[in-house]
Amino acid sequence: MLSEFDIIASCFNQPGLAAEPGDIVRLGIGDDCALMSIPAGKELAVSMDTLVEDVHFPADAPAHLLGYRALAVNLSDLAAMGAQPAGFTLALTMPRADADWLQGFSQGLKECANQFGCFLMGGNTARGPLNLTLQVHGLVTSGQAITRSGAVPGDSIYVSGNLGRPALAIRQLLDSEADPKEKDQWELAFYKPVPRLALGSGVSGIASAGLDISDGLLADLGHICEMSKVGAQVDMASVPVAPELVARLPVDEALALALTGGEDYELVLTVSPDREQELLEQAGMLDVPLHRIGSITAGDGVICLDAQGDPVTFSSEGWRHFD
Amino acid sequence: MLSEFDIIASCFNQPGLAAEPGDIVRLGIGDDCALMSIPAGKELAVSMDTLVEDVHFPADAPAHLLGYRALAVNLSDLAAMGAQPAGFTLALTMPRADADWLQGFSQGLKECANQFGCFLMGGNTARGPLNLTLQVHGLVTSGQAITRSGAVPGDSIYVSGNLGRPALAIRQLLDSEADPKEKDQWELAFYKPVPRLALGSGVSGIASAGLDISDGLLADLGHICEMSKVGAQVDMASVPVAPELVARLPVDEALALALTGGEDYELVLTVSPDREQELLEQAGMLDVPLHRIGSITAGDGVICLDAQGDPVTFSSEGWRHFD
Repeated sequence: MLSEFDIIASCFNQPGLAAEPGDIVRLGIGDDCALMSIPAGKELAVSMDTLVEDVHFPADAPAHLLGYRALAVNLSDLAAMGAQPAGFTLALTMPRADADWLQGFSQGLKECANQFGCFLMGGNTARGPLNLTLQVHGLVTSGQAITRSGAVPGDSIYVSGNLGRPALAIRQLLDSEADPKEKDQWELAFYKPVPRLALGSGVSGIASAGLDISDGLLADLGHICEMSKVGAQVDMASVPVAPELVARLPVDEALALALTGGEDYELVLTVSPDREQELLEQAGMLDVPLHRIGSITAGDGVICLDAQGDPVTFSSEGWRHFD
Repeated sequence: MLSEFDIIASCFNQPGLAAEPGDIVRLGIGDDCALMSIPAGKELAVSMDTLVEDVHFPADAPAHLLGYRALAVNLSDLAAMGAQPAGFTLALTMPRADADWLQGFSQGLKECANQFGCFLMGGNTARGPLNLTLQVHGLVTSGQAITRSGAVPGDSIYVSGNLGRPALAIRQLLDSEADPKEKDQWELAFYKPVPRLALGSGVSGIASAGLDISDGLLADLGHICEMSKVGAQVDMASVPVAPELVARLPVDEALALALTGGEDYELVLTVSPDREQELLEQAGMLDVPLHRIGSITAGDGVICLDAQGDPVTFSSEGWRHFD
């Protein structure tokens, strides 16, 4: 049986995954604490997220895809604040030390770590039901973090990329009658979201508010409204629905999934009219598609308008834990 | 059924538990990330730890004691590095939103948070088997953190307080024939360890190496030996055994439990002979008992010597996860 120390040594404290001591991470894996040095003029952004078997991913999830996703969804929170990754910690609880699973999981983490330049600084392993908790640490220019509370009436609302593909992917992955030839495509869509780090960092100081879409566009936009004490109007015809949904689902169902499915990890950004051009130029330089989907109002809550400008309601505002 | 947001609002985002924005914690609960500002000349120390039901605590553990312990054992890692607490994050996974349990747990966290000045900055709640993962964040003067790797041959080895009470407490709490009148005393000993924050902070820059005892004195001293590439000799007669063990157990068993039982959260510190007096003066000023239990050698591993100076071995070097 592997000991905790063997697991750490062989799987996690490996080149390409473990943080090398440098200017920011001063001390990594192996001591009571990791040590970080934060450059002058920067603030540290931290976010913690947990993935639980059968709640956040199916029990047969491939270990390497799970490793990738666990880090990617956390990095998306840094993107949402406009922060650049500096390192992460991992608390891994698992029923037994399964060398194959650990090998796959750590390879997935490593792939994501290298892609986005965010390496493992420390953490904890324990025995128990499978639970993956990560904390990411990032740097943002002091005072320029994109929060949820800065939106004001008159601001435009933008969303990056397009929506609904991960929600459709989950359906397909759980559907025993789905075409097995498409499995790779759906795994990619669900397990390998692309955190919008360059966009978030590029528009920090420009966007008035923002967050990343995990619960669903409408639910997440509701969080901005609540924190900013404003309302939002969404022009449904302007919402960018992923082409896979358009091709496979009735129009209404495709739109509903795009608005409420969640797990997109695209950014919702609000911006005042006088900075709107700047925001679009930044996104253009970074080659990230941005769609204007509505505007912030003086009301409260999120209202969806159809092509005729009439309000529409949805049965679900996106998935909420413990509901 | 409570939603995740109700739980956070009512239990965790409460005065006296949630961090108020200030000079260090710039933004707390409620956004995609928490934001911290680190003063010039300080490094940030971070440590993450997990408690799992039936592994780290019995299933019937009182919620408020569990809340206290979850934070206290994490703070002990800051103490071990000589860092002062700045804030913590919490990932709480639980099977259902039980309002009574949450109330008790958050009260326990709050008690510990106030006692040591370390408040909740953010985190995550999820549904799943009970899992408590915390990350603590602390500040230490740059370059003065107490690591595991700085011990050199000739250094003295000190331990704070006395050892074995928590290990005896676990036995008693799990013993169905234990005296119920003593239960409070054992719960206190196990669930409310006192992180040696003042001592750690006071001797940073003086001690050559150090850590806190979670796995057991011998196992943890072994970590210093491994990281510092040295050996250690422990004079068993000098090890401070808690009076409860002396009163209740045969001499050999009491000593074995003190050396290997773990969960003590006392500090092991090494110090060069020329700074030894300074170390003792600091501890004296802070009114923390320190006992010299041996010395660092040029060898490797930990050797225990009996009163005659003869080496003794133990069947266990302390509890290791996944063994």
